[in-house]
Amino acid sequence: MPINQLDLVRAEDDDKQSLQVVEETDLTVWGQERQFQSVGKRHSRVDGPEKVTGRARYSYDIRLPGQLYAKVLRSPHPHARITRIDTSKAERLNGVHAVLSSANVSDEITFYEEESPLFSKTVRFVGDEVAAVAAASEEIAEDALRLIEVEYEPLPFVVEMEKALAPGAPHIHAEGNRAAEKKSERGNVERGFAEADVIVDEVYVTEVSLHNAFEPHGCTTHWQGDQLIIYESTQGIFGVRDQVAEKLGLPTHKVRVIKQYMGGGFGAKQIVWKQTIIAALLAKASGRPVQLMLDREAENLATGNRNATRQHIRIGAKRDGTLTALEVEVRQSVGAYMVGGEASDVISIYQHLYRCPNLRAKQTGVYINAGPSVAFRAPGYVEGCFGLESAIDQLARELGIDPLDLRLRNYTGEDQEKDLPYSSPESLRASYERASEAFGWRTYRKPQPQGSRRRGIGLAAHEWAAGSGSPPAYAWIKLNGDGSADVITGSQDIGTGTRTGLAQVAAEELGLPMESITLYLGDTALGPYAPTSSGSATLPSLAPAIREAAINVKDQLCKAASQRLEEDPSNLRVENGEIFAVDDQSTRVSVAEICAAIAPHMIQGQGRRGPNPEDKSVRTFGVQCAEVEVDVETGEVTILRVVASHDCGRIVNPKMVDSQVIGGITQAIGFAMTEERIIDVQSGVVLNPNLEDYKIPTIMDIPPITHAAVDLPDLEANSTGIKGVGEPPIVPTAPAIANAIFDAVGVRLRKAPFTRRDLVNGLRSA
Amino acid sequence: MPINQLDLVRAEDDDKQSLQVVEETDLTVWGQERQFQSVGKRHSRVDGPEKVTGRARYSYDIRLPGQLYAKVLRSPHPHARITRIDTSKAERLNGVHAVLSSANVSDEITFYEEESPLFSKTVRFVGDEVAAVAAASEEIAEDALRLIEVEYEPLPFVVEMEKALAPGAPHIHAEGNRAAEKKSERGNVERGFAEADVIVDEVYVTEVSLHNAFEPHGCTTHWQGDQLIIYESTQGIFGVRDQVAEKLGLPTHKVRVIKQYMGGGFGAKQIVWKQTIIAALLAKASGRPVQLMLDREAENLATGNRNATRQHIRIGAKRDGTLTALEVEVRQSVGAYMVGGEASDVISIYQHLYRCPNLRAKQTGVYINAGPSVAFRAPGYVEGCFGLESAIDQLARELGIDPLDLRLRNYTGEDQEKDLPYSSPESLRASYERASEAFGWRTYRKPQPQGSRRRGIGLAAHEWAAGSGSPPAYAWIKLNGDGSADVITGSQDIGTGTRTGLAQVAAEELGLPMESITLYLGDTALGPYAPTSSGSATLPSLAPAIREAAINVKDQLCKAASQRLEEDPSNLRVENGEIFAVDDQSTRVSVAEICAAIAPHMIQGQGRRGPNPEDKSVRTFGVQCAEVEVDVETGEVTILRVVASHDCGRIVNPKMVDSQVIGGITQAIGFAMTEERIIDVQSGVVLNPNLEDYKIPTIMDIPPITHAAVDLPDLEANSTGIKGVGEPPIVPTAPAIANAIFDAVGVRLRKAPFTRRDLVNGLRSA
Repeated sequence: MPINQLDLVRAEDDDKQSLQVVEETDLTVWGQERQFQSVGKRHSRVDGPEKVTGRARYSYDIRLPGQLYAKVLRSPHPHARITRIDTSKAERLNGVHAVLSSANVSDEITFYEEESPLFSKTVRFVGDEVAAVAAASEEIAEDALRLIEVEYEPLPFVVEMEKALAPGAPHIHAEGNRAAEKKSERGNVERGFAEADVIVDEVYVTEVSLHNAFEPHGCTTHWQGDQLIIYESTQGIFGVRDQVAEKLGLPTHKVRVIKQYMGGGFGAKQIVWKQTIIAALLAKASGRPVQLMLDREAENLATGNRNATRQHIRIGAKRDGTLTALEVEVRQSVGAYMVGGEASDVISIYQHLYRCPNLRAKQTGVYINAGPSVAFRAPGYVEGCFGLESAIDQLARELGIDPLDLRLRNYTGEDQEKDLPYSSPESLRASYERASEAFGWRTYRKPQPQGSRRRGIGLAAHEWAAGSGSPPAYAWIKLNGDGSADVITGSQDIGTGTRTGLAQVAAEELGLPMESITLYLGDTALGPYAPTSSGSATLPSLAPAIREAAINVKDQLCKAASQRLEEDPSNLRVENGEIFAVDDQSTRVSVAEICAAIAPHMIQGQGRRGPNPEDKSVRTFGVQCAEVEVDVETGEVTILRVVASHDCGRIVNPKMVDSQVIGGITQAIGFAMTEERIIDVQSGVVLNPNLEDYKIPTIMDIPPITHAAVDLPDLEANSTGIKGVGEPPIVPTAPAIANAIFDAVGVRLRKAPFTRRDLVNGLRSA
Repeated sequence: MPINQLDLVRAEDDDKQSLQVVEETDLTVWGQERQFQSVGKRHSRVDGPEKVTGRARYSYDIRLPGQLYAKVLRSPHPHARITRIDTSKAERLNGVHAVLSSANVSDEITFYEEESPLFSKTVRFVGDEVAAVAAASEEIAEDALRLIEVEYEPLPFVVEMEKALAPGAPHIHAEGNRAAEKKSERGNVERGFAEADVIVDEVYVTEVSLHNAFEPHGCTTHWQGDQLIIYESTQGIFGVRDQVAEKLGLPTHKVRVIKQYMGGGFGAKQIVWKQTIIAALLAKASGRPVQLMLDREAENLATGNRNATRQHIRIGAKRDGTLTALEVEVRQSVGAYMVGGEASDVISIYQHLYRCPNLRAKQTGVYINAGPSVAFRAPGYVEGCFGLESAIDQLARELGIDPLDLRLRNYTGEDQEKDLPYSSPESLRASYERASEAFGWRTYRKPQPQGSRRRGIGLAAHEWAAGSGSPPAYAWIKLNGDGSADVITGSQDIGTGTRTGLAQVAAEELGLPMESITLYLGDTALGPYAPTSSGSATLPSLAPAIREAAINVKDQLCKAASQRLEEDPSNLRVENGEIFAVDDQSTRVSVAEICAAIAPHMIQGQGRRGPNPEDKSVRTFGVQCAEVEVDVETGEVTILRVVASHDCGRIVNPKMVDSQVIGGITQAIGFAMTEERIIDVQSGVVLNPNLEDYKIPTIMDIPPITHAAVDLPDLEANSTGIKGVGEPPIVPTAPAIANAIFDAVGVRLRKAPFTRRDLVNGLRSA
């Protein structure tokens, strides 16, 4: 049972210290000479009670006086020109306060790298925005949409990547259907293949998947004088501020973005979509606050998805497993517009995961008449890892080398693209060791088949460009007169536990108990700048800034305490609310007492995130092992267990890292087994933009998951040794499962999601 | 007509420069070598549009999900013991969520210097809190109050100050009816009087007046987890935070106080009253947000008033007008409890306004069975000024010296109590000159009587201990990447225009136009500590902190610009959004351009208010002149005009200083002419705790008011030269009117408010 298994996860976690190979010896290093008090502890979420009692107000829950509700009319055609639009009937409907369309909104506000005005007269996918209404209720707004008359002139369209590149395909944009391209080459690939004893040459395919965060996209907008206030379900409040300001021609301080609680964001919420600007303009036009929350269908049509890919892979290796050449050519669908999906970096894992002197990699974006692709949790890496790690497994089988040994044989501690060592060159090795040991990889014995059921195991590794965090990020601290502290950041908690993790960091450095810290975030007006919560960057970007602010405060405190205690400030330490002399711990005074004496009001501190190292490449790594059972008659795959080890530097809160690992693997199982946007090629209509026909995993689909933690502070990365772990756990699950299926039944699945049909067909031809 | 007169005020203001006698020569002085861009300008309130459109949400407008409404049951007796209280019927009423009384609330939460638990079993005034209910609506809460059964054992009571001190008077507190006492003595008063040629010996009386801010007291409380959030109509959000935390035994960071808009506060809102704690406990008990707004009657009974005073004055002077001795003995009613009214400093103006070597002054607080007194706009000074400045006028008449000349003869530039020079020793003189000149004091010729109507003029001066501001006060600035700035303080705008004035200061120092500044305040969680808005302290406390934060930001900016412009940072100046070399103004670059290059996200700055000078006494001064017309048949007094000059250091916004002057004089006219709380001595019941029977001035009662501004930057006081002006304009109006009445008809009114009866009686006996 999955629930019980969570206990196992914790038990696993408790002996993680055995693998800590990096010693904190530098005097400037965090935590030197003492035990951590808050960091590393399994604190429950500080905002948990608010959430489980329903008191937390999410974007949907915002209610402002006089608030209106907005709905968007969307194109039913995959490609068409609007020849006439008449909103007059809708405008006359009782309860309607504003109607916007291309008839009354200027073309100057553009989206998608300026490829599309807010309301385009050419629609390029089913779901493209055509008009919008703000009314006294959602129902009236829906009624009004039906009163808008639109005449479309349908245009030829294409929804399949290969067909979009075929000669004579309908052009989605004037310049054709090729979008952005990325290339990389090192060494001499031809010579590499010439030196190879074995060459794997295969095509791997992945399908479009949809983000489906619990909370849909949406916002409530409100003009307070000439300042626009936006309550938005977003991963980046400052990003929304800056993008909205730019699109509306406002100075940034005239846009204030607030987000206190959020029901998840997986990349699609890291940018501003059309609906936010639409809501702002409806609020302006109506003189009222306007809430525009998307329903599941609208969000699944228009606010992003994970690109489909086609990866043509060639790997050359010596008989002993040493790689000699790696080549991959990727095509990825970007939908009708470029809005980030074209940057999903499929080839990066090919460039980085293994030592290989000769490499050629290329990816080409392809327009199709469908909703635009955008970043989706480890964008490109999930897709690339499936291709690469399946192909490596195939190579191992062909060479007769254990897949784990083949990987270790081609291990690299160096970023071959940048020609720099990794900041944590041994953390992938630690992940291999930790995961394989916890899984029992080396000692696994395949059980006898039970009737039609066969078992097998698979393994996959990954590396990941992000997780290091980066400047700019800032933090402010107020140490109150009673020794409690308010920590203020401009970050956001997208559901990952940022409020808790950052409070732990503040508590640790301030030397105060967790209950003395209140962490504030989620308001661009009152918090200092913080980056968008993407690239698993939140904790590693903010934690060093908070540390610096805390040190700033502590310095003032210790300076004051030094007079009272007659000790040099450098000899003082603050722990658990008390200041004491390191070499005479009986010389002590409480923080509150010093505050009351010198600053009964407040001691203020500011901190900022320092730069990343220039002589190291900071990346994160991980390994997952899966065991599956395949029914060779029905093609049913049961995932029996997954063991995951992920390098995320220092673990601030093991409970929350577990959550990310469990969540990531859950989403990865959807990617591997069931999730696929289906478009009817005849009509261009998306058949499953909902949660009934689009199948995300349920609790019954999730196997026991063991998080065999790798807790290696990466002190080269930043002053806290913390790296992010929001994205990595989704990356290697699909190939681990695919490799396990092959191990069980000898069928190599080269298209994700894996269908019973493909598996049965494979079994049939095997 | 008053409306037209406002234009006159502005015209007056425009030539105020003629009196600027202090030159800014110090190199460190603000604004040296350049014209002010924002400070000194008549900016309209930045939050004006929100207020006049009704969008601004005041405390009464807060609506939280599930919010309940609370009402308080108050004692109908002036003094009684509660022998039984039964709330069970109220608790059973449908819609009632919580009922609190002495039956279920511990005595440990105390008020009024610990003299009274939250729900006392001994009530000491009509309006004392007995029980409270939170219900689904205000109406249900009212119904529930009627279901609470209370049995009282009435106790003897006293509501008159003199009777309270008489032998055998009922004791309001165990130790008797004398409350706090304050004394001061210098020189030898007996010798002073012996040296005098003339002695004035009179008793002056003032009555209790009620604050009656437009917005009544009240709050909305909400427990978010273990944090208490309070939306309160308060002059001091941090004060409320700290007092509530202390009373409820919470760390300060577990209390967050928010106040964005406020309909006025005149001293009574500078502390926490029982209703805030009651609302917090009701919210806790009900698990719901609770709004507890007082109605006018409740607020007028229980949340403070200006003390009544009886001032026995003796002044001795030489024939040439030189004062030789000053003696005053003051009794002031403090109501049933000490909560600040006992600190109303009636004798201070006697100690400071005139050079006098021999002085004895004493004030004694007296308990009576009535609502407690508390600070009310220039507490004590209004009352003391009426006594002193009437007596000085009498002295001038007796000596045959022009009242203005008598005052100038006894002029002092020195704080005789502290033996320190004033920071602005000439600003009172400037006020005399400016006011008398604008009024035409020297050239006034009394017109012939028109029938029963007689005209006369009067003058009064004042000094005032506050207005200097003080630390601690802090400010944070974010300079955004586009050259706009967010300025964050923990202050509050109680209606005086703080948002606008502080934004002007920030704009000035940052060198940005006003429209590039957004100022945030009113939230203890997200803003740095700021003092309570009392003692006219807001602008002079916060402005220097903002200046320092802005300098901090500007230093970073100029350092970056210096590389671009190849100029030394010290040679750079920022003005109107551009950075340029002082000695070559063609070498320039925009702030936005530098930000975009070096910090497209944010430049952060912090500032704090420095200390006040130790070698100077910072006080403020002012003079008002009034002309009245008295109908000797009816006793009707028509105030024809008032001219006011008030030293408030550098004027940041002339329009807002005008507002304070007009508002202060309006309130002073209420004090002088109509406002008086009336208690029935038989029952102890307040007869006029409302706005029907308690007479505040209406627009028809307000004469043309001319503000003849004194704009003398007080650079000894702080780095901005700013001093506060919220309170002073209320101080000298009443004696100026009384002196004008004497000038018109020869009747000396020694009790405020002035009644027709007293005037007619005076005319009759004259």
